[in-house]
Order: sequence, then C-alpha cells, then structure tokens
Amino acid sequence: MKEPNKKSALAEIHGVNQPDAVNQSVANAVQKFRRKQPSAQELLDAILKGDKIALSRAITLIESTNPEHLEKANEVIQGCLPHANKSVRIGITGVPGVGKSTFIETFGKYLTSIGKKVAVLAVDPSSSISHGSILGDKTRMEELVKDENAYIRPSASGDSLGGVARKTRETIMLCEACGFDTIIIETVGVGQSETAVHSMVDFFLLLKIAGAGDELQGIKRGIMEMADTIVINKADGDNIAKAKLAKTEFNRALHLFPAKNSGWIPKVTTCSAFEKTGIDKVWEIIAEYFELTKENNYFEQKRKEQNQYWMLETINEQLKNRFYNHPEIIELMEQNKKAVQNNELSPFAAAQILLERYFKV
Amino acid sequence: MKEPNKKSALAEIHGVNQPDAVNQSVANAVQKFRRKQPSAQELLDAILKGDKIALSRAITLIESTNPEHLEKANEVIQGCLPHANKSVRIGITGVPGVGKSTFIETFGKYLTSIGKKVAVLAVDPSSSISHGSILGDKTRMEELVKDENAYIRPSASGDSLGGVARKTRETIMLCEACGFDTIIIETVGVGQSETAVHSMVDFFLLLKIAGAGDELQGIKRGIMEMADTIVINKADGDNIAKAKLAKTEFNRALHLFPAKNSGWIPKVTTCSAFEKTGIDKVWEIIAEYFELTKENNYFEQKRKEQNQYWMLETINEQLKNRFYNHPEIIELMEQNKKAVQNNELSPFAAAQILLERYFKV
Repeated sequence: MKEPNKKSALAEIHGVNQPDAVNQSVANAVQKFRRKQPSAQELLDAILKGDKIALSRAITLIESTNPEHLEKANEVIQGCLPHANKSVRIGITGVPGVGKSTFIETFGKYLTSIGKKVAVLAVDPSSSISHGSILGDKTRMEELVKDENAYIRPSASGDSLGGVARKTRETIMLCEACGFDTIIIETVGVGQSETAVHSMVDFFLLLKIAGAGDELQGIKRGIMEMADTIVINKADGDNIAKAKLAKTEFNRALHLFPAKNSGWIPKVTTCSAFEKTGIDKVWEIIAEYFELTKENNYFEQKRKEQNQYWMLETINEQLKNRFYNHPEIIELMEQNKKAVQNNELSPFAAAQILLERYFKV
Repeated sequence: MKEPNKKSALAEIHGVNQPDAVNQSVANAVQKFRRKQPSAQELLDAILKGDKIALSRAITLIESTNPEHLEKANEVIQGCLPHANKSVRIGITGVPGVGKSTFIETFGKYLTSIGKKVAVLAVDPSSSISHGSILGDKTRMEELVKDENAYIRPSASGDSLGGVARKTRETIMLCEACGFDTIIIETVGVGQSETAVHSMVDFFLLLKIAGAGDELQGIKRGIMEMADTIVINKADGDNIAKAKLAKTEFNRALHLFPAKNSGWIPKVTTCSAFEKTGIDKVWEIIAEYFELTKENNYFEQKRKEQNQYWMLETINEQLKNRFYNHPEIIELMEQNKKAVQNNELSPFAAAQILLERYFKV
C-alpha cells in the first residue's frame, strides 16, 4: 500500500495533530498491570529497573496467602537480595494526634527535594480489622503520593504482628532493590509493633507534641528508650514556648537513660510539619547519626544482627503457630488455662500436660 | 537389772549433769536432713508445718536435673499449690554497687521486726558460671540469715534464664506454703532477668544511688518504667543533698512515663540501709500499693495473668529448646546464619529451610 504522504491523488493534507485521548505511558502501565501473571523473573527485572507498578505487584504477592504466590514472591525476594540493603531505614512512631501523616508528608517531600528516593511503609497489625488504618488513606499525603521519587504502601494486613512484620521486612528489600534509598516505616505508638519496627530500622524517631495530656502522650512503655531522636511536632503559633519547654524536659529525661550501644546520644528537636519549619534540622540529626554509626561500624553490625534476629523470630513464630493452632491443643488449652487461673494446677504442670499431648500426636 | 538410784551397795551418787555435747534440736535436724529419700508426701507435710530444712530439700529437688527428682518435685509443688499464693511478692533490682545486699538485710530485718515472715530468693542466670554471684555469699546478710523468721536461698543455676526463672517461680510457691508471707526476689540490673522477675512479682522496686556516673547507673533499658518505686539508697552523710536532688529528678522523669494499669503512681524515696533510715517509709509505700491494688482488684487480676503467662512461657521455651537442640538443626543453623549475615539468603528463606528440615525428621 502506498503511504499517504507520497504525492498521489489519494494524498491527504495532514490536519492538526490531536492529543492522545489517553496518556500513553499510563496506558502502557495499566496494560502491563492487567497482563496476566508476569513471571518472577519479569517482575524482578522490572523492579530492578525502578518500575513501581512491578514493585506493587510483587508486594501484593508477598501479602498473599496463596502458597503459589508465596513461592513466586520468594523467588523475587531472593533475586532482589543482592540489590537490597543499600539504603537507610527510618522508623517513625507516635500516638494518633501528634500529626504523623503531616510530618511524613512534609519530611518525605523535603527528602525528595534533596535528591532522595523515598519509600513509606507502615506496620499496623490492627489493619486486618480496620483495613489499614494507617497509611490506608493515601490522600492524607496528597503531595507525596504524586511525587515521582516517592512510593507509599499501606500496612499489610494479617492476623498476627509477626506476619505483618515479616511482610513489611520483605517489602523493604523489594523497595531497596527498586532504587529507593530512604525507607520510612510508620507505626502507631501502641501495642508491640514498635519493637518489631525497631528491629527492622537503622534509626528510630519518636514524634510527640508539647503540652498534651497524659492520655495523648500515653505511648507504650519502653518506646522512649528506643528513640534515637524525639521530635516535638506542632511547634507553631502559641505552641512554640510549650514545645521548647518540652524539649528541655525530654532532654533531661533522656539523660537519665543508659547510654546506647551505638555511641549515639539521643537528641530532642522541635518542628512544625504544618508550617514546614525545623524539618531540615530533623534530617541533619538523622544524617549525623548515620555518619557516626557508619564510621564506628555499628550500622553494619546492627543490620547483621537484625537479619539473624528475623531468621530466629520467623522460626519461633512458626513453632508457636503450629502448636497453638493444633486442634487437640486448642481444646485442651482452654481447660488448662482455667485450672491454672484458679490455682488448681501449677503453670508448669499445665504446660507439661499440653506439651506431652502435642509431641505424642 | 536394778536401777542405780535404788538403795543398794551398788548405788552411785549422781554427779553434776554434764551439758549435751550437741544441741539436740540441731542434731535432730541434721539427722532428718541426712535421712535418705523422704517421700514427696513427707516433704510436703513438713513444709506445710513450716520446716525450713524440708523446704530446702524440696527446692533442691526443683533445681535438680534428674528426671526422678523432677517428678517428686512436681508432686510437692502440686501439694503446695492450695497453700501458696497467700503472700506479697516484691522484686528488687539495682546494678552492683547500689548496696542491694545491705538494703535487703536491713529491709528484711525491718519486716521480721513488724511480724512478717520473709523469704529472700534471687534470679541470676549468670550463676551457672559464677556459681551464684548474687546471694551466693550468705554472710553478706549475716543478721538476716540468723533470723528465725527469714529464709534465704541463692539463685538456682541453669543454662537459660527461662530455666532459672521457672525454678524460682516454683520456689516461691513452696516458700509460701511453708508460711512465708513476704517474698523478696533479688536480681541484678542487667540482662533480661528483670523482665522475668517483673512477671513473677506483685511489686517492683528499683534501687539506685545518687550522683553515680552513668556507668554505674547503667541499668537496662525499660527497667525504670517497670518500677513501682525508685529507692535512692546511701542517702547518708555528704550524700543526703545529692539524694534529695536525685529524688526530684526521678520524680520528674517518672512523670513523663505513661500511667500504669494498676492505677498506681510510682513513688521515689530515699533511704540509708547502712544507717537504717527511711526503711519504714519504703515499706509504707509498698503497703500503700497493696492496699490500692487489692482494693481495685488489680492484684488478683495480675496474679492470674502471671500464672497464664508462665504456662505459655514454659511451652514456648520448650518448643524452642527442642528445635534448637536438635542435632540436625544445630548443624544446618550455623550455615544458614552465615548466609543470612552475608545477604546471600533472606532471613525468611533461611527460616523456611530450617523448619522444613525439622518437621520432616
């Protein structure tokens, strides 16, 4: 067939180019997303090229309970492993009301503005009930979610903290292989999720506000001692004086805690995520921490320990799951619990009865 | 044969009575102690009558690794169970140097002086190496050890904290059945033993001294938050002003911690165990705590929870022991640990390999 731009009677004069009805790059992405079953290798290749859609798909596999998906997920993770680990991982906690979402939005935007690639994940074991209470509503970070150099993923759901934590930890590796160099992991300041998050990050940031009642400040015991920095948010308007006072108080309190193995002395600072002030100072503190701990080798050492910890934690969790979910044990457990509570049976005798039954069956 | 005091040629005049060469009550006790193998029932009967030697023997059975002894120990414990639980259990911790021994001696003597029967136990998992570093040397409490209403027992030895803690918890029950109404459990302010002790006592006392360097104060993270009271010891001579200042500082720091479920607000006080001052105040605080928590039912509730905790802990510990001591697992574990540390294998993949091997064999 003759081409239309050749001189012929059939030649047409070109009109004005019409814009595509759809953005072609989005269309490609959607098409790719809808394409059935990319192989583990295809996912891996795309992730290593920085493809966020492939990243999302792989994370969905990690979060799936389908054994086939899990197998594929493990293949992807294993492939990502040599490319992971090249990042800094920052845990952020604080009770509801301290402005975590706003802080992460402002902080995340600051990080991308200085050239970082930021992934924001969350650990919220309650999300199986609330369907992702934290980070579930991405519109709470509407600037960051549109940022090309940011990736936001709500908390995995799951019926145990162990399960949610495992999935998050694997997700970190994928994000790193995908080129994200700053991983932020959000958690709420209640329950045991802090301990889990603390064991997967390099730096732990506790967000507070000044002058809140004890109830609002009611963060779980031990969290304050984990903090590498306490950031007092909402230091704006009438709150500035109160925030400064809180800074002094927390500094004094931190002084009473034992020295950290990292050699780091926790720092307290104030900021206003809303007014975008003091955010550079927060990063300055974090950067200083990384400089220190990379220099004294604590950073590397801690990561190795964390890897080992996660291996052992996974084993322990599965040993327990098998035991406590065994039908015969479930039945006997209720009886024994009651007998122990009423002092009819010593806790150790009760344990022995249960263990004997388990290892016989 | 004729009796010599009858009138006869053979009659002798009685001389002056000679004192017995041995104290008969001690001799009886030693004889009883040496008697071979009292039955579980005999031990139990004696314990319920308040016999300290029987108590010591039963505790030795608990601490034994001989399966036959363990079976007998379990019988005794089961028999003590209905008579246990009628006491208050007080945990005392503090780093070496704060004067724990002197404090417990003075505090224990004060308690017996007001009519209490006091048992002092210890949890020190390092004792398998040091052969009982805390309370091992009973002469450090020379007044209390001679007190009829006191019983002192050094820490059980063991190769795991779990094992030592289990033995101590069983020992508490025996002491209570033996009539001791105030159980003091000493531990050192390092390692995880505090958490174990915290989960077996009703009240947790942290002993500190004023003006010590950070090193001496270097108690493990989270301990301060567990404390129901902080007692600043050695508040004597030149130290009084410093101790008062420390009291103010700790009060301020405790204020920053979240409220306790018990409804109790932790109190700070000063004392001098050496000069025997402020000790009554310490007991006053503890008594006030028990009044509050027995009134609001927290006391009873916590004990029930602790019983259940110990049942589950025992199960979890044994599940892990069986796994990690399995010969095939020991071999494979080393390999996998290295691979995980070097990022050749993800922690989760490594765990999976080990678990599959374990459940197949």
